[in-house]
Amino acid sequence: MAFHIVLVNPEIPANTGNIARTCAATGTHLHLVRPLGFDTDDRTLKRAGLDYWYAVNITYYDSFEEVKAAFPEGRFFVASTKVARTYSDFAFKDGDLFVFGRETKGLPQEILDAHPETGIRIPMTDKVRSLNLANSAAIVIYEALRQNDFPV
Amino acid sequence: MAFHIVLVNPEIPANTGNIARTCAATGTHLHLVRPLGFDTDDRTLKRAGLDYWYAVNITYYDSFEEVKAAFPEGRFFVASTKVARTYSDFAFKDGDLFVFGRETKGLPQEILDAHPETGIRIPMTDKVRSLNLANSAAIVIYEALRQNDFPV
Repeated sequence: MAFHIVLVNPEIPANTGNIARTCAATGTHLHLVRPLGFDTDDRTLKRAGLDYWYAVNITYYDSFEEVKAAFPEGRFFVASTKVARTYSDFAFKDGDLFVFGRETKGLPQEILDAHPETGIRIPMTDKVRSLNLANSAAIVIYEALRQNDFPV
Repeated sequence: MAFHIVLVNPEIPANTGNIARTCAATGTHLHLVRPLGFDTDDRTLKRAGLDYWYAVNITYYDSFEEVKAAFPEGRFFVASTKVARTYSDFAFKDGDLFVFGRETKGLPQEILDAHPETGIRIPMTDKVRSLNLANSAAIVIYEALRQNDFPV
């Protein structure tokens, strides 16, 4: 059993490094859509995730459409502070993909619009604009694992 | 309704900054037990959490015993990779406190030993030593919120 995390144009290497660590901890596959805001041999990335980077199944893409094409049957859950449904209201299953946008802007509106039934939101107060990207990914992937009795 | 996160001797300012952001996002109180591995006016901490630091209810202590004394009726859940029970097996309630140790070493054994019934573990593969501290805190606090129908 495996889930997938898709990061569309992530900007901050420490976040992607932390997400790689979470992927290694959970057997989750990581998909990175270029352009990235850093080199994958960037020193900061290594510091944040080197021990785990090579323990993770990582695939690179040049567009989100390429990810979609690679998983024609996949269920793509798109994370946003702007959608209505809470992430934990869905029943996640093996093979589900969780898509997160860049730290400063989130996902492009066209990606959100293309997935009107599978937008997921993490509830939060109005004191923050958003959660940290790596924290958001960890919260969602661990809810998916919890629902599936922690296969890891 | 509010939960509490207690960090015992955290070392890395970006982690505490991210946890402060999660606390601001969830109305969670943050308790920091000295010594800390950084100044609270440290530039890195500010970069990681400045926008949120002053939106969080933060209390400082010189020992874990001080935290215990401040919450004589509190339920202290101590997070460790070395305990048996999964975090989501507990039913969390208003006022619960979640205690995390330093990034490199986790909580002191004597704190774990003093809470034999409320040790919580986040399941993970053997490919990592642990999850990132801020991610661990986010996973646990969001499970507590989920169980309580997201009061935020």
